[in-house]
Parts: sequence; structure tokens; C-alpha cells
Amino acid sequence: MSAIERCAVIGAGVIGAGWAARFVLNGIDVVIHDPHADAERRARATLDNARRARDRLTFAPLAKLGELRFVGSVAEAVQGADFIQENAPEREELKRELLREIDAHAPSRALVASSTSGLLPSRLQDRMRHPGRFLVGHPFNPVYLLPLVELCGGAATDPAAIDAARDFYVSLGMHPLRLRKEIDGFVADRLLEALWREALWLVHDNVATVEEVDDAIRYGAGLRWAFMGTFLTYRLAGGEAGMRHFLAQFGPALKLPWTKLMDVPELSDAFVDKLAAQSDHQARGASLAMLEQKRDDCLIAVMQALRTQDFASGKTLAAYEEHLFAKMHGGVKAERALDASEPLRLCEGVVRPEWIDYNNHLTESRYLQIFGDAADALTAHLGVDAAYRASHGSFFTAETHLRHLREIACLEPFLVTTQILGADEKRIHLFHRMHHARSQELLATAEQMLLHVGAETGRVAPSSSDVAQRLAALRDAQAHLPVPEHAGRGIQKRK
Amino acid sequence: MSAIERCAVIGAGVIGAGWAARFVLNGIDVVIHDPHADAERRARATLDNARRARDRLTFAPLAKLGELRFVGSVAEAVQGADFIQENAPEREELKRELLREIDAHAPSRALVASSTSGLLPSRLQDRMRHPGRFLVGHPFNPVYLLPLVELCGGAATDPAAIDAARDFYVSLGMHPLRLRKEIDGFVADRLLEALWREALWLVHDNVATVEEVDDAIRYGAGLRWAFMGTFLTYRLAGGEAGMRHFLAQFGPALKLPWTKLMDVPELSDAFVDKLAAQSDHQARGASLAMLEQKRDDCLIAVMQALRTQDFASGKTLAAYEEHLFAKMHGGVKAERALDASEPLRLCEGVVRPEWIDYNNHLTESRYLQIFGDAADALTAHLGVDAAYRASHGSFFTAETHLRHLREIACLEPFLVTTQILGADEKRIHLFHRMHHARSQELLATAEQMLLHVGAETGRVAPSSSDVAQRLAALRDAQAHLPVPEHAGRGIQKRK
Repeated sequence: MSAIERCAVIGAGVIGAGWAARFVLNGIDVVIHDPHADAERRARATLDNARRARDRLTFAPLAKLGELRFVGSVAEAVQGADFIQENAPEREELKRELLREIDAHAPSRALVASSTSGLLPSRLQDRMRHPGRFLVGHPFNPVYLLPLVELCGGAATDPAAIDAARDFYVSLGMHPLRLRKEIDGFVADRLLEALWREALWLVHDNVATVEEVDDAIRYGAGLRWAFMGTFLTYRLAGGEAGMRHFLAQFGPALKLPWTKLMDVPELSDAFVDKLAAQSDHQARGASLAMLEQKRDDCLIAVMQALRTQDFASGKTLAAYEEHLFAKMHGGVKAERALDASEPLRLCEGVVRPEWIDYNNHLTESRYLQIFGDAADALTAHLGVDAAYRASHGSFFTAETHLRHLREIACLEPFLVTTQILGADEKRIHLFHRMHHARSQELLATAEQMLLHVGAETGRVAPSSSDVAQRLAALRDAQAHLPVPEHAGRGIQKRK
Repeated sequence: MSAIERCAVIGAGVIGAGWAARFVLNGIDVVIHDPHADAERRARATLDNARRARDRLTFAPLAKLGELRFVGSVAEAVQGADFIQENAPEREELKRELLREIDAHAPSRALVASSTSGLLPSRLQDRMRHPGRFLVGHPFNPVYLLPLVELCGGAATDPAAIDAARDFYVSLGMHPLRLRKEIDGFVADRLLEALWREALWLVHDNVATVEEVDDAIRYGAGLRWAFMGTFLTYRLAGGEAGMRHFLAQFGPALKLPWTKLMDVPELSDAFVDKLAAQSDHQARGASLAMLEQKRDDCLIAVMQALRTQDFASGKTLAAYEEHLFAKMHGGVKAERALDASEPLRLCEGVVRPEWIDYNNHLTESRYLQIFGDAADALTAHLGVDAAYRASHGSFFTAETHLRHLREIACLEPFLVTTQILGADEKRIHLFHRMHHARSQELLATAEQMLLHVGAETGRVAPSSSDVAQRLAALRDAQAHLPVPEHAGRGIQKRK
């Protein structure tokens, strides 16, 4: 399969709009068909949420946004599409007919995926003329942030179609889970449904309110579930003897009357009223938009936290960022930005929410982090990578003189330019300027002395001749630039 | 009830040892009784894990560790105890008899709590002579990190005992959930058990492996469950129409054959072998200790991430830290440390894991953060607090000159001293030195110029006379100290 550059999204409720946003943020053009009059407004609102979330999630270079277009028919939507994602309501007959129509109009190369939460792909595909290209790709809300997507083919699905869909979803930063068997509800929703049935009974029987049920999850097991599932958790609970011991110890509890599961409480008017009222109380007047932002901010914070642990969804995020950086370095973007005769533009971004102080401004130590990122980008440009660090060494900061001139608030854009004041095979003398990216106001400067330290000795040592040559060329290209007024000065004594 | 200074822990398996560690870390003396020969070794290993976790979780000032002592009988353990936590195996008859014995020997003021996962308190307390002081306090593994504890009294329980236990658990940094009804399995374990039964069936029927079940959780719903439970999540999935719409849309799916819940797969030898083998494969040779550390590090990272969002368990953590700081300021500790005639010791700690770079050393920008913390501690000492900032203004850093001399690795202890080089009503000129707290080696220095900025004008303005007076007194007390060699110097030009 060739690269996917255009997707059709059929049905743009919460799930379909989430898919559209994830596609668009990855540079893919999207054509949506949804018969609902309000669909376009809601999908654009979802895209706004998704862009806000992505700005906070990663600084990796994003593709240029894809285009989002709405059309009046399924046939028009799938025309020219490389990949089609169907997100109609969970009614089998409706989906079968829709998939027949999609199949009839889609280019033969296109893959067709359904977001169904639990209907069987063998049944969904049985009116398609090319059922081999059909699979289930079942995501989770919010689709633009959660990595999981369950993949399941039907009897007539070509395994190569599943491979191709998996590669595509991975390129979007997701974690595909390929199912071994076709089963109602797949894997994740069976687990969620089991918990949800029991939760409904607890509220129904006045054992707990909806808020208490939620607290029983999020202050306890839910914290573990963000990175370890139930089996690995229980392995740990078994102590040194592991899973076997856990089963011997807690297996018998499975026979105790601790669940009420198979029964479903009738969703009578009175029970629905009770659930809705308790849910309103729990929300404390927060609007949907406020709750969605809180959810997204928490998800981002959790995934970024897990990235520092290189574990679970944090590992997925790290792999995705690597993929985005590789794409950037493969293109012309990085080269184009680097005009060696001017201060180098090596670092730009927006002030992230976790970087601000109580006054909503960029906190002091983050200035040094940002200037450090610029210095890292420079040495990376000179050829210092993991292999070089292992074999030769790397540059360490010996001194930094920071001056703070203006503040910058949360989510404001900045850019850093870096001037080379001097360099030899052991040293780089730099002068960074941080500007507001819109107003161009100078916010801060940092003068730095970097020393090259050998990998084996841990002492100051010459860099490799390649690195030294590139550095000398940059230094010479900038030699004509005026020396900044404050370079070389100390902090002035006052009084 | 008076302050709890001494706890008895009866039974020190995974849960009992976790309680003992949480108590000890909060300055409470603990006496343990456990008939198992290996109990003391395991409990001390758990305490080591818990101390490691606490050093990473918070920098709030910890109480002096409580003492941990092992004794040979229940009677001896509960003697003089203010609070007793029972953690025997989940066998009703065993627990009833044990609680009778505890009750017979414990001081009349002591509270008695059971860690049972789901046995009914009315039955557990029925052989006690003072059943009014008994309740269930059901925690989650690891007890020293997870905030949730379910509180449930029996028919004979005095509600005041539940209030007192709740206050105690809150003071340990926990989130107590008080149950409305006595019910087998309480709330949290009913939910976990429901999910676990379904998970067992999925593995039993070869729909998924244990690892795939875990991935279906941790890459999807589990990420949400770290901060929002199932009801609030579904409210959001309902879109703008909320819970009522969600129930209308997804309620019918409850009738679909998506779960296999009430049945329990028989834990035959063959099935236990399969679970154990898949669990071994999932662990990829990692030892229990390695997995426990990974779990704890991820939990800490997630809770710290949620603290930046002031949400869910992050809110619990923030409240706990505030409580610890309040306790410290109530004591003499902070005052004692400040000898005004020497460079001030205002900031010390250990290098936290999230502060290190790929080389396992303190990353560059964190030096500035640490020196900034020292400067903040100084201005707090001068009287700059939230009220002062609102009415008068505060000190901002105008310039910093950092010098890096030696590296410091993860978890190594450091301390910062701060010398006042000069000061007037608008400026403070500082020189910080960061030392390794054991070797005393000088790691880095920072010269800083702070300016006082008025709250209303946002311009440099004099501080209040109180602040200016305290500052002048400190400056004069340090006037006899020699000026550091590098003060006032700029970065030297080389070549």
C-alpha cells in the first residue's frame, strides 16, 4: 500500500470527529460525510480541542495540518480516498448497508475500517464486493489522544489489510491491538462493560453514588491501570511467588457473592433520573467543554509522566515523536531554516502550561531549559548524536549568564536565535536571544560557554575533526555579526 | 480521640507491611505481630521500597521515621497502641477470633480497623466486647502509595470511630471513601472483581493473552481511570447531552452478549499453568523487585502529573504536602537552621529521578530551579508571602550567572548556601553555592540580581519597610564574609 494522504470519515459524532482530528493533525486531508445538520460545527469544535491538546502533548514537529472538508454524500466522501473510517451508530443493519455503499464507490486501493465497539466484522463485511480490505479499527474516546485501537478482521478479511492498517495507525501515534478471535464486544469493551454493569448495580441499590463509584476507581486501581493492566498488577500482589500464588490466594474469592454481573438493572425512568441527577451533582456545574479540557489536560500530564518512565503509553508517545523528528530530518524543513550567516533559528515553540509559575508566566528555570534546548539543537546539527557521544564525547555547559528582560505568558509563542561568538575544537562560546515569536520583543538572553568533554576520560578534549570543521565553518560564517552589547560582562555591582 | 503515636499491625504480608511502612513514614511507632518466620525480612524490604518511593513522591518535610518493632504475640503488639490495623488472611472465622483477641488486650482508647477486602464488619466484630471501636479500613496495593481506603462500619460500630479513623487516614495522605451500606466486596473490589472475571474468561477462551488484556486496559480506558471514573467518563462520551444521552445510546448494548460475567472459569491445573506461563512471558524475566520499582515510579510520576492539574489523586497529594509543611512551620526546625552570620542554608534535598539527563546526572536547567528555590526561600524568610505579593509586590530575577563545576547523580543529596553580597530596598545581590551534602564538594555557583517589582505598577519599586529592614539586617550580618572570587566577573573570552 502506498502512503495514505487522504481519508474519508463517514459519520462524525464524538468518535468520527475524533478520528478526523487525529488524521488532520497528522497532515492528512479529510473528507467527512454526516447527515446531521450540526455535524460540521461539532467536528470543527473537536478539531479545536485536538489542536489545543496536541500543542500541549508534544513539541515534536507536526506536519502541516490536513484539510477538512464536508460533503453531502457517501459516494462523494470516499472518492479518491486512501483510507475510509466508518463511524455510524451501533446498528448492524445500518452499518452493513453503509459499508456496501462505501465499498461500491471507494477506489480499489482504499482500506475500509469500521469503528464499531463490538459488532462482528464477518457480518459487517458480507455485502461488500471487496470484503478483503475491510477490518474493524475500534478506537477510544478521545480518539485524538488515547493510543489504543483494536484491530479485528472478519472471515473474508485479507491479513495484509490488517497489516497495512496497523502501520497506518502506528504512524498516527497509536497502539494497535490485533485480536486473535472475532468475538462480540472484542476485548476492551467486554472489560469495560463488566465493570460498568457492576457500577450500575451499585448505584441502583444505593450502595454508592456515581461520584463514589468513580472515586473508588480513580484513587485506587485506576491509578495503576494507567500503566499496568490487571494481570501484571495481580502478579505483583502475589508477592515473590507471583501469579500462581495470587491465584491460590485470591481465586477462592471469585466464588464469593461479590458481583451481580450478568443481570442488567432495568433502565427505568426512575433509575435514569437518578443517574442523571447524581451525574449533574458530580459535575458541579462544569460545562462539557470544561470537563473535556480537564480530561485532556490530565491525559496529557499522565502520558508525559509515563514518557519519563519510558513505559506503557509514554513509550508509545516517545516512539511517535521519534517518527515525527525523523520525518522532519528527512525533509527540507530543517535545512531551509538554517541560514549560517545569521543567528541560527534552532528552537521555537509555545509556553507549555506545566512551565508557568503562579503568575501565569514562564517560570525562571524554564528559560535555561529552552536555551539548553537551543544549544542541544546546535550540537546535534554539528553531528553530536548517540553514537558520537558513545565514541567521542559531547559538549557540556560550563557557564551561563542569563538576563531576563520581559515576561511571556502561557501558550504564547517564542523563538530562540543563537549566535556563535567564538569556537575552537574544545569550546563553543554562544549568545542566545529569546524573542516573542509574534511581537518580536526580546524576552531574555543567555551567553554560554560549552566545553567538549571526551567520552572516555571525562575531561576537556578536542571534538572530532568532522564536528570541529562544521563548527569552524559556522563560526566563520557568523564572524561578520556584531558582538552583542552585554557579551562578556559580569553582573554589575550596585550600591 | 487524642493524636495517634503508636500503631499495632497484626499480620504483615503485602498489605500489612504496606500499612506499617505508611505509618512509620508519618512518624508513627509501629509494633508488628506476624507468625510467619520470614515476616520481618519482608516487612523491612517493603519499608525500604516505601522510603525510596516517598523520597521521589514529595519534597515536603517528612516527620522523623517512626520505630518498627516485631513482637511474638498479639497481646504484646496491641499493648499501648492507639490504633490497630488487622491484616490476616481473608478467612472470616480466623479474623473473628483474632479481633476478639485484639479487643481483649488493646487499651480502651484504641481504634481497631480490619483490612479485609470484602468480609462484612457486622460479622467480624461480633465477638468483640467493645465492637463500637471497630471498622473496616480497606486499602489498595501498594498501601504506602495508593490514596484510596474504604471505610465501613458494622451494625455495632460507633459512627465517631469512623470519623476518627477517617481523620487519621487523611493525615497519612490518603483518600477515605465512606461506604453507605455494608455489602460483600464493598465497592472497589466489586468493580475490580467484575473486570477480573471477564479477563479470566478472555484468556481461558484464547481470545487474548494476559498481556493483550493488560494492553487493552493501559493504552485505553486505564489512562482515563487514573483521574476520572467510569461515570464521569461516560458523561463526556454522551457529548453535549450528557449522561441521559449516553444511557439512551449505549444502554441497549448492555443487553448484547458482550460479557460472560457471572460464571467463573474453573481454576483447573491446566488453566493455572496457562495463566502462570503467560504471566512469566509478560514479565520478560523482570524480577518482582524490578516490577515493583517500575510500578512505584509510574505511580509517582502519574500522581505528580495530576498534582500539576490539581485533580484527583494529585489534589490529595497537594493537600498532604500542605499538611506536612504546616506541621513543620509549627515546629522549630526552620528557625534553627538560619544562622544569619554565615551563608544561609535555605535549600537542600536529593536529586529526583525526573530531574536527570540521559547520563543519570542532574540536568542543566534544574540547577537554576534549585538556586531559584533558594532565592524563593530567602524572600519567604524576609516576609514575602501571598498576601505581600498581592498588596506590595515581589522579587524577580533580573540576571543569573551560573557556573557548573561538578556533576551530581540521581538520588545524591545536595545543599545550597546563599550569601548576600549587597542589598537595598529595591535589590538583592546574591551568591549561591551548591554542595554535595556528604562530600561537601562544590558542584555549582550562581550569582543573582533580584529586583523588587511593585504589585500594581509592574515596575521596580521599593519593598515594604518590614522587608527592607529584615533584608538590611541580614546583609549587615554577612558583611564580614569574603566576596567570592568569581562574583562580578563575566564569561571569559577564549581564543
